[in-house]
Amino acid sequence: MLRRYGPAKATVVDVARALGVSHGSVYRHFRSKTALREAVTERWLDQEHDSLSRIARAKGPAADRLEDWLLTLFAAKRRKAGVDPELFATYLALATENSEIAARHVETMVGQLTTIVESGIASGEFTMRDARVTGRALWDATAQFHDPVYAPRWSDPDMDPAFAAVCELLLDGLRAR
Amino acid sequence: MLRRYGPAKATVVDVARALGVSHGSVYRHFRSKTALREAVTERWLDQEHDSLSRIARAKGPAADRLEDWLLTLFAAKRRKAGVDPELFATYLALATENSEIAARHVETMVGQLTTIVESGIASGEFTMRDARVTGRALWDATAQFHDPVYAPRWSDPDMDPAFAAVCELLLDGLRAR
Repeated sequence: MLRRYGPAKATVVDVARALGVSHGSVYRHFRSKTALREAVTERWLDQEHDSLSRIARAKGPAADRLEDWLLTLFAAKRRKAGVDPELFATYLALATENSEIAARHVETMVGQLTTIVESGIASGEFTMRDARVTGRALWDATAQFHDPVYAPRWSDPDMDPAFAAVCELLLDGLRAR
Repeated sequence: MLRRYGPAKATVVDVARALGVSHGSVYRHFRSKTALREAVTERWLDQEHDSLSRIARAKGPAADRLEDWLLTLFAAKRRKAGVDPELFATYLALATENSEIAARHVETMVGQLTTIVESGIASGEFTMRDARVTGRALWDATAQFHDPVYAPRWSDPDMDPAFAAVCELLLDGLRAR
């Protein structure tokens, strides 16, 4: 229903009708339209978590995995914005409203970045530093490549070189000297 | 007029009335309301250029100047968003519309960052790399601390530690090893 009507127009009644149940039945599982919208968006966001998590936990040089992780995230966000504009709009609305779903998504992403940083520190590849703070800094410094507010710019031809330059600078900051 | 009525409601007629001239006189200098709005916003944005330019061109370690420059920019943007919300909204609208004024502002800012990077490379303090590409990467990686779309978050208590962590990581990336 979100895909068909968009976040502003899709209603719980539409959802109930499509399921062949009363809207009361839907409300027994989701206490409001917002809660339902959040649950759908969370599941949609989670689609990428597995492939990203696999990269974060793989073997091999931490720098390569970090770059691979960031590239995979950027590609997934671009794809979602391009092929699934209605669900992307729902996600953008949640992100702007500081919803818990958006916060939880960021939490998971920062956690995976922290895992990569920890493994790089453990192997001596990265300088010793607070892995959690660094994971967050990596997330913040790459906002242009995953924050949905920037989606209108993701098709610009200069986004790929911009991404490569930011990545290189961040990796150089992490590397042990 | 932009301060009093906001970007959506301020009109060329309001401006002409405040100046005691006909609106035709205003149009002789600015061909549209958009052109007038852009000129005002550009002058307003330029207020910070001098102090930032002074930091970019000063003597002393490039790393210190870079940090000082980024701190000064972030403080100026926060102040503008806080004390001048109507002009800030005008600026945000221009930034979102990809106006030439916003592009020119970014151009100037990236130019100053490039100047700092060049001086750090020249003194041997920073690793040799393309100064222009690096200036742009520094701008991109610090978007959360100057892009007007993030203004609603700038009063969050975690913005200062987030800024410090991003800054530290970027400076470590620049430093010669």
